[in-house]
Order: sequence, then structure tokens, then C-alpha cells
Amino acid sequence: MKALVKEAAGPGFKLCDCPEPVIRDDEVLIRVRRAGVCGTDVHIYDWDDWAKGRCRPPFVVGHEFAGDVVQVGKLVTDVGEGDRVTAEGHIVDGRCLLCRTGNAHVCPRTRIIGVDRDGCFAEYIAMPATNVWHLDDNVSYEVGGIHDPMGNAFHTALTADIPGSTVLITGCGPIGLFAIGICRAAGASRIIASDVNDRRLELARTMGAHDAVHPAEAEGAVRRATGGLGVDVVLEMSGVPPAIHQAFALVRVGGRVQMLGIPAKPMDIDFATEVIFKGITIYGVVGRRMYDTWIQMTQFLRARQFDPSPVITHRFPLADADEAIRAIKSGEAGKVVFEIA
Amino acid sequence: MKALVKEAAGPGFKLCDCPEPVIRDDEVLIRVRRAGVCGTDVHIYDWDDWAKGRCRPPFVVGHEFAGDVVQVGKLVTDVGEGDRVTAEGHIVDGRCLLCRTGNAHVCPRTRIIGVDRDGCFAEYIAMPATNVWHLDDNVSYEVGGIHDPMGNAFHTALTADIPGSTVLITGCGPIGLFAIGICRAAGASRIIASDVNDRRLELARTMGAHDAVHPAEAEGAVRRATGGLGVDVVLEMSGVPPAIHQAFALVRVGGRVQMLGIPAKPMDIDFATEVIFKGITIYGVVGRRMYDTWIQMTQFLRARQFDPSPVITHRFPLADADEAIRAIKSGEAGKVVFEIA
Amino acid sequence: MKALVKEAAGPGFKLCDCPEPVIRDDEVLIRVRRAGVCGTDVHIYDWDDWAKGRCRPPFVVGHEFAGDVVQVGKLVTDVGEGDRVTAEGHIVDGRCLLCRTGNAHVCPRTRIIGVDRDGCFAEYIAMPATNVWHLDDNVSYEVGGIHDPMGNAFHTALTADIPGSTVLITGCGPIGLFAIGICRAAGASRIIASDVNDRRLELARTMGAHDAVHPAEAEGAVRRATGGLGVDVVLEMSGVPPAIHQAFALVRVGGRVQMLGIPAKPMDIDFATEVIFKGITIYGVVGRRMYDTWIQMTQFLRARQFDPSPVITHRFPLADADEAIRAIKSGEAGKVVFEIA
Amino acid sequence: MKALVKEAAGPGFKLCDCPEPVIRDDEVLIRVRRAGVCGTDVHIYDWDDWAKGRCRPPFVVGHEFAGDVVQVGKLVTDVGEGDRVTAEGHIVDGRCLLCRTGNAHVCPRTRIIGVDRDGCFAEYIAMPATNVWHLDDNVSYEVGGIHDPMGNAFHTALTADIPGSTVLITGCGPIGLFAIGICRAAGASRIIASDVNDRRLELARTMGAHDAVHPAEAEGAVRRATGGLGVDVVLEMSGVPPAIHQAFALVRVGGRVQMLGIPAKPMDIDFATEVIFKGITIYGVVGRRMYDTWIQMTQFLRARQFDPSPVITHRFPLADADEAIRAIKSGEAGKVVFEIA
Repeated sequence: MKALVKEAAGPGFKLCDCPEPVIRDDEVLIRVRRAGVCGTDVHIYDWDDWAKGRCRPPFVVGHEFAGDVVQVGKLVTDVGEGDRVTAEGHIVDGRCLLCRTGNAHVCPRTRIIGVDRDGCFAEYIAMPATNVWHLDDNVSYEVGGIHDPMGNAFHTALTADIPGSTVLITGCGPIGLFAIGICRAAGASRIIASDVNDRRLELARTMGAHDAVHPAEAEGAVRRATGGLGVDVVLEMSGVPPAIHQAFALVRVGGRVQMLGIPAKPMDIDFATEVIFKGITIYGVVGRRMYDTWIQMTQFLRARQFDPSPVITHRFPLADADEAIRAIKSGEAGKVVFEIA
Repeated sequence: MKALVKEAAGPGFKLCDCPEPVIRDDEVLIRVRRAGVCGTDVHIYDWDDWAKGRCRPPFVVGHEFAGDVVQVGKLVTDVGEGDRVTAEGHIVDGRCLLCRTGNAHVCPRTRIIGVDRDGCFAEYIAMPATNVWHLDDNVSYEVGGIHDPMGNAFHTALTADIPGSTVLITGCGPIGLFAIGICRAAGASRIIASDVNDRRLELARTMGAHDAVHPAEAEGAVRRATGGLGVDVVLEMSGVPPAIHQAFALVRVGGRVQMLGIPAKPMDIDFATEVIFKGITIYGVVGRRMYDTWIQMTQFLRARQFDPSPVITHRFPLADADEAIRAIKSGEAGKVVFEIA
Repeated sequence: MKALVKEAAGPGFKLCDCPEPVIRDDEVLIRVRRAGVCGTDVHIYDWDDWAKGRCRPPFVVGHEFAGDVVQVGKLVTDVGEGDRVTAEGHIVDGRCLLCRTGNAHVCPRTRIIGVDRDGCFAEYIAMPATNVWHLDDNVSYEVGGIHDPMGNAFHTALTADIPGSTVLITGCGPIGLFAIGICRAAGASRIIASDVNDRRLELARTMGAHDAVHPAEAEGAVRRATGGLGVDVVLEMSGVPPAIHQAFALVRVGGRVQMLGIPAKPMDIDFATEVIFKGITIYGVVGRRMYDTWIQMTQFLRARQFDPSPVITHRFPLADADEAIRAIKSGEAGKVVFEIA
Repeated sequence: MKALVKEAAGPGFKLCDCPEPVIRDDEVLIRVRRAGVCGTDVHIYDWDDWAKGRCRPPFVVGHEFAGDVVQVGKLVTDVGEGDRVTAEGHIVDGRCLLCRTGNAHVCPRTRIIGVDRDGCFAEYIAMPATNVWHLDDNVSYEVGGIHDPMGNAFHTALTADIPGSTVLITGCGPIGLFAIGICRAAGASRIIASDVNDRRLELARTMGAHDAVHPAEAEGAVRRATGGLGVDVVLEMSGVPPAIHQAFALVRVGGRVQMLGIPAKPMDIDFATEVIFKGITIYGVVGRRMYDTWIQMTQFLRARQFDPSPVITHRFPLADADEAIRAIKSGEAGKVVFEIA
């Protein structure tokens, strides 16, 4: 089969002919149709410090996808050939204290497809049946293929109390854009989105932001929306230090800051004035809650309360991987997907 | 001033000329413009067993209203003459364990206007300043005048987890109808509303119910919407025993039943199969949370996420009180309001 | 092997020679050492209406036990021969919405050992590895053998907010007695336990109840402890209608009633005065949360914060099953266990 | 009356003869008997940058106290002459969104006695009646006089889930020491306390810490107690950067860090590895929840579940203020109190 492979230490991906995966008894084989490209893939492509420390080439890249089940292991009872599916890409042990208390998203033994084992930028992928998630008929392969980052957005938004709340979303990359639509559907009273990029601010408005502003204008927008008090909830989606400081500055006392964006390195913070005296709660968002978040996604999509499609701005075949990575790096793209089959 | 008075034990109200209320130092005097008529008022009108046990005539009736502040006591600092306001009608002690822990809505020493002291079916009412709630400019006196029952609906709906949930609302009186709109705005994925009255089912659809059905069809609608599992949340708004049994039957295992409707008398329940084996949570709804619910109302109205207006079907002058009561008793009305000034 | 068997429709158990269970690849075989006898076993013994409707003889009875793993299926990786273990007796599908959101305790496809498939009143039992729970070295087989009902008590107590709370526990059977010790260890400020049986009230005091009283005295004890307000939390452990009414009467407004005791049949309840006007929350307790409750048990036992031993009052060999059942029916027993190996 | 006064910008306090406070109609006059000395008082004594920015001399210092009511304003109905009382020292507006939703502890218009208006290091203090809290007969003036910092500890501990949890407490000053006793009473399974000072570690053991260790040994103690997973909850009570990093390092994934200690200045933090990838929750603790925390204190003290007395190590008359401040600065003291009358 064709697959995008990280062949060796060093930059780039290579489109290779690889053998099809062989499934275990508790796995299924999936024909991949659409796959999302993520910032993590860019790190692996660039072979940055994080990638060097974590990944062991060679392996097939990619962790967001949807497709059709074409073969099922003999122990699998709840997934069948022909099923239209996506999957949770975090493969967890299922036995640790975290997995056993509804916190599998932070299982210490998580292995991620496309990072720690072969991924989905390929014609086929083997997945444990327990990670497979069925798609409703009204959900396209394309939307199925971006359930992973959509799930991050659902996890970030819906672990805060959204109905009737004022929400600041700092960073309008794909996950921030999804979060805007989710918060709007979940009854946020006012959504202020900030980004440095005008194209993304346009998408933010399309997704339902009441205000879509440059970071320098965020304070004014929050002041006007909240009488100077600050917003109830901040979703920090950028990982950029000035945005993080702004999150703490613009959340109201007693409010909540959900942190998903990953700062590249340590940064200065004044816990006294930014966190403690404000009496706020901070929540670090990892992956998707397994499987509360997935059920929420299915519910929102089934009810057509939320449409992620406008966020998808670029589509490429696997052969154009370099171009796909370039699109993401430009900062102009929403979500970028591979069309595989 | 003109006021609707419960003059003595026995049925009916009487439109009287009364002296204007004299305010205390911590009170304000409000010129009433609109006032909502409630089922409680019907009980008092009919002088039923509950009314006989609770009320001590003579007193001015009515507990839902909006108007303008025309005079403020000398200790009042945060309400001014000319302010457009509504008010929480439960006057609490502010000192008990409940009041001191955010549970003033169940303060054991609550006194209700129009029940335990003079109410708002009058040209003027005296209210403690702490009970006064300011109206935004975009909120009409009419909508201001029904904040009390709207608040019941907000309290019932938003103490459950609504975004992405399937919701059954049993009973489409005014509070049930408000709750439909609130759940829709708060991101419920599917709202099934049931009532015996076709006019009310029509209003239910107007307010956003996905399904508006006769009680006999509720089970089928829930089955179709949830694959037989049952709904995540039931809002029981009828107080009718068959609806209460249906609430327990149609909520999913581990789900939540919010009980607001008041059964007229004791009823049989099989706790084993209806509650315990299902692992459900039941929450008894009293009044409005003071003042979390009020802030939610202001947020939803300010953002125009929710419009209660379609629920208001009848408007009368105070002089037509008998007709107003008759409209409610007909079962055909949505919300009935008095236009006073 | 020797096993207590429900051979056919009709009363009684029979001690039989049965073949040892054959395990599947994902199961383990456990040599049973101690097993707890439960009210459910009495229902099966008596062959009452519930048993007739649910059970399909012949099958081995019993669902509470501890022992040693003697054989493991070839797919099992986290349980080994020689491990000292107990097990969750509810075998769930692991795939449904409930199982996938941390609510496996209400999985609609639950099958219970000793009820729906062969149980543990036997020398050996086959268990799915995912249901097996390891015992710390400091936990005896006897205490291991009663994790199931202890877990019910942990689930009931610790899904309420116990530290600093006043707690009424209605019913001092084994689960009520465990709950007393758990609430005491978890920082309840005052525990009032009620039962009709003096022997059980003595055990209640041993387990840490501040007050252990006859039901007729419970109201006075609650009044004295709470200044007439009512308790923060009631754990209803009896299933007896007068105790259930007392639970609603003696919980404070805004308080919480945890219902575990199973009423034998429908009963009258006045939702208006007993539930709604009081603004209370009711929670129906099913089994043990999988596996939050089990981790709590391990923590409490590991730290020696809680010792269930005094509750165990009777020990029998399997051959004396009739006597064991008789002891439970007497109402004088705490926990009754079989000593098997 | 005698009072400790911050007379002017610059270091030190001065014992002065001042006029007795005159109360407003909604205030009471309290004869102070015992008063606690706090780190905040040291800042004011030293006249450091924080004090310069916040305080406006002259004013009477001190915010923790207990005493007897000697006079009540004419609007006060629920406090009487002769009542034994302490008080919440944060005087809030009672009308803002925060005050109205149970979050008065972060009211933006808070004024603190002894900081923003005259305090309690004096023979008399005037307090708004709504801030007054009655003491049970079994609570001494001395324990009454330290309800403020005890309340900080209750707030920090009991907004986490303590029963059955493993808890790391970094910093054994008075609030950390109180927290140890509170967590022990509330059913923590293992409490590891760390401090650099041996005298304080001794007090930590007295208060119930299972392990009381130097910071360098904390990692080992946590590893042994949790099998390397990390603790469920950290209470950060030191404000020292290495302890804050240790808090993030030693909390388990998905765990909770309660931050009360105030770092003196900004510090570096790696949000990626310390917060986000761990999926933790951080809560900034301000003051005491009004009045949930106070009710918890009363419950714990009434039930004698918790005795703060061993933490009190030094007692002085007002005249020895310099010595009291010196004792705190030594790092050897537990709680320091003034004996006033």
C-alpha cells in the first residue's frame, strides 16, 4: 500500500510502498479515506527536539482519519466489515487507575498512532477494536477524519460551563475555530475570538464568534462585553505566552482557564496576581475524554448543531504532503486534510 | 391605588382602592407595569386547601412583575429612582445556613410576595432593595414581568447538563415552554416535549421542540431519538402522576429527572424499579437560585439567545382578573399577564 | 468441586459435586477462600417473585468472594497465578454508552455472577480478568470476600459530600454498618444510625455512630444534632417505607438522600412536600462504580482508616448453607460469610 | 483604647491610645480577646512593596480575632450583646455578580480589616453584623481568634476531594499545619508534608501527617506512597518556586493542585510538561468561601474532629508586637497570637 513514512531521523516524509498491516485478533483493518494533518505532524516532519525525543523511525505518520472497516479480528464482536468509522488514536492500557476511573485520556502508558506506532497517512491502518468509533450516516468521511482535533475542542469547551457564559478563545487555529462553533451551539452568550491572522478571524466569524479581533483589541472587546469584569471562561488555544498572560488577565475573578495550546518553552508567570489572587481554576487539556467526548461529538453532529466543515480549507492527495505541511506553516490555513480513497 | 386583593377566606379576588405601600429604609417603591399570573394565584383565587393552610387575608395578590422604581429607602445604595426593574419574590432571612451557602432558594424563613405579604397585582409594590433585579434596555416590561416563572425554567434546565443531551419535557405549561427554548439555546441535541393539549404542543414547536407529542407518543419518540436507551435528562413540568411515571420510565439509566411540577397529592411509586435500579438522580426544584439563575436569565436575554415572548398568549387589565384566571384554567393558555401601567 | 447450587425452581440450595469451571482466554480461574452471603442470595434461596422472574436454574449461587488465582487465560496479561484477589461480580459489555462514560455500574447488559451465570459459593470460579481486583497483603481473604457489599456502602457514602456533614443512616444491616465506618473515616461530623434491632445498634456504635437509635428516636436525635434543620445527607439502607419517609422528613432542605435499600413493592409518596418543596437531591445507588469505588476501598483499607471486621458476625462452611440463610433472616446478624478453603 | 497602629509609611507598629470605634447602625462593637498574627501583618510591619502599594496609614492593624459583642447597631437583629464571636475580615459589597453567586470571597470591592480599614489588634473593633460568626461554647477565644487562617486551610483542603486521597502539603506554616489536621479528619489516606524546618515537621507529625519530610525527600515519599503515580492532591502552602515545581511534578496525571502560598515574584513555568500534558487542575485559593467554609469550621470544631491548638506556639500581649513579629520571621513558630483581654 501507499503510505507517508518517517523513514529516518531528519526532516521530511516519504511516500512509500509498504506492506498492508496485519491485524491482531482484537484489531480491525480500516481502509483510510480521509485523514487530517495536525501540528504534531509538522513537528515530526521538521524533526524538532520534541520529535527527536519521542519518535523512533521508521513509521507511518498520521493520527486523524476516517474510513471503512475491511477486516475484523476474530475476537472482535462490535465492529463489522463495511462499517464507516473513525478512531481514537490514543491506545491506552485499559487497566491502570486512570483508565479505570474514566481518565484514560491521561493513561501513563498511552501509545499514539502515527507517533508511537504506525499511523493513518496510508491506504490501510490496523486499530484495536476498542478504539474504533462508528460514524452516523449523515457524517462525511471528511468530517469523520477530523474527529481527533474536533474532540480536543469539545473536551476543552465542554469541561467548562458554557450555557450563558462569556467566552474568550485565544488562538483561531483549527481547534480554536471548532471551539467557537461548539461554544455557540452550547449556548455561550458572547464569544470573543482573537488571532493575529485576518483569514482566521474571518473563519472565526463564520464559525459564530460574536467578536473576532486582533490580540491587541481583545481587552477592549472583553471590557465592553462584561462591563470590565472579565469573561467567565477562557479557552487558550494558541500556546503563545502573550496570549496566556492575556487569558489570566481577561478571565474574571473566580473564572476558568482551559489550557490546550502548548507553549514551546518555559515562560514567566506571576502566580500571585495572575492566578491566586484571582481565585481562578486552570485545567490542562489532554486529548479527548474516552469516551465522553466522543459521545458529545456524535450528539452534536447527529443533531446538526455544529458543522465543522467551514474550518477545512485545504485538501491534498498523500503525494502532496510537502504542500500540505507548507499550508499549515503559512498560518493561513484552517484544517488541512488528505484525500486518500 | 388600584390593587387585586384577596379580601377574605373564600373564592375570588376583588379590585380595590388601597393605600400606596410605605417603604422601609432598606426598601424601594416600584410602579408596576406588567405582572404575570401564575398557577399559585389560581390556587389563591379558588381558595383551595393549600391556600387555606398558607394565606392570611386580606392581602394584595401577585408575585411576578416588572416596573419602574419611583422611591428608594435611605439605606438603599444600589437601586435608584427611574430604574427599570423586576424582582425576586422570595424574601429570605439572609442569615441562615442555607442563605449563607448559596441556597437561599430554600431558606426556611422565606416569605413570598402575594402569598405571605402584599404582592404586585397593584399599581405599586414595596420591595427590599436586595430583591430587586435590573432589566437591560432591550428587555421589555412584559418579559421583565415573567422573570419569576422563566427563572423556574432556567433553574430546572440549567442545573442539569444540557449541551449535547437528549431532553424530555413532560408538560408544556408556560414553564415547560420556557424550558424548551432554554434547552434549545443551551445546546440540547434533541428535545421531546409532551402535553395533552394541541395548542400547547404548537407552542412547544414554536419554542424549539424537535418533537412535540401527546403523552401516549412520548415513549416512541424517546425510543427513536435514543435507540431505546432513554433520554439523558427529563424536566418534569406537569405534576401529573402518569407523567411522573413516564419520566422515570423514559430517562436512561444513570440519567437525571428534574421535578418542578407539583403533584396535588401522594402517589404510588416503585422506588426499586423506577429509581434505584436505574441509578438515576432526582432533583426537586424550588424557586430560582439566588442569584445564579437571575444572572443566567440576564445573559440569555442580553444575547438574544432566548425569546420567551411567544409563550405569552393572553393580556388583560387588572379589572379582568376573572377572565385571566379563566384563561389559565382552560389549559389553552401559554403565559397570561396583566397590563397595569 | 463442591458448590452450592440452585438446582431447580423452588426453595433451597443444594451442595453438589460439580465439574470445575473451564476458563475462556480472557478469564482466570480462582480458588475461592471466603465468600459473603447477601440478601440477594436469600431471595434466590426462598425463590421469591424476583428470583422467579430473573434466575434460570441450575446455577451456582453467590457473588461476593476472595481467593487465589490458580489459572490464567492466554490473553490475560495483568493477573497472574498465585495473585490474591477479589472481583467485581457485575460483568458488563464494556462497549455501551454507559460503560464508555464511567457508568458501567448501570450497563444495561450487566450479567451478575451467582444470578445470571455461575457464582462463587464453590471451590472454584471463572472470572473475566477485567473484573479481577488485587488485594493488598494487609487485607485478609475474609475482608476481601466482602468487597462487594463494602463497595455498595462506599458508593453510597462517597457520592455524597461527607467531610463536615451530618449524616443519618436508616438501616444497620451489613451495608449500613459499613457505611457508618466509612462516613466516620471520611470526616462526617455527626452520624445518627437507626435500626429496630438492638444487636445491630450495638454494632452501629462499634462502627462509629455518634447516635444509634430506634427509628422512633431518630427525629429527636436529628433535631438535637442539627438545631431542627435536618441532616445534610441521608443514606437510606433499609428499603422500609417508614424509613424512606423518615429520610425525606429528616434531611434538611437542599440536602441529599442516597437510596440503596430496595422497597419490596410500590409505596405512597408525597413528592410535593417530601421532595420538591424541600429542594433535595435523590440518588439511586446500583452496585459499585467501576472502578472508582474499588480504588476508594483499596485506599481506605491500605491506610487502615476503616475496618469492616466487626460487622462480620457469623462464619459457616458451605455445608451449613441453611443455617447461614437462617442467620441472615433472623435480623440479628451482621455480615455472614462462608469459609470455603 | 490600646491599639497597635501603623502610624505612617515606614517600618514598625506603634502601641497607641486611640478612641474606641463608633459603630454604624448595621455594625456591632466587639471587645477583642485574642487575635492572630499573620504573614500579612509582617508585610505591613516591614512596609514592603506590597504594603506601600496597598495600605494608607494611619490605621489599626490586624484581621484575625475573637471576642465578645458589647454593643449592637439598631438595624442588627441576629447578633446580641454578650455573644462570643469571631468574624470574616473581608468586607464585601454583597451586590456584585460574585457576591450574588456564592463567590463573595473574590468580590472585587473587598475591603479587609487591618489592611483597608481599622483592624483588630486593639481592645475594640467595629464589624458589620453580616461578617460576625458565632462561636460554639466549646470553642475557646484563642481558637476563635484564628478562624481566618484556619478558614484558609479549610477552603484549600475541602475544595479538593479528600476522602481516600493521597495528599502532598508543601509548606508547614500555620495554614499548612491546619490543613494537615483537616485532611486527616476528612479521611485522606496518606498525607505527606514537607518543610525545610525541623520544628515545623515535628508539628506536622503532631497534626497527623503520615510523612513529614524535607523537600528533598518528598519525591521519594510520594513514590513510595503512590507506586510512582503521584498524589491525587497537592496543597501548595509555601509560595516558594521549588515547592511549586515540586507540586506539579508530584501530583498525578489528572490530579489537582490547590495554590495558596503566594510567590513573591514571577517565576518560570513550563506549562507544557508541568500542567497541560499532565491534564491537571489548578485552583487559586483566596480567603474563605463565604460562608460555606465557616460552616465547615464550625462543624469540625463542634464535633471535635479537628484541634488546631497544637499549632499555636507563641502568645504575646499587644505590647510585645515586635517580639511577635520576630517569632514569625524566625520560621520556627507555628501560629502566633496576641492575648488582649
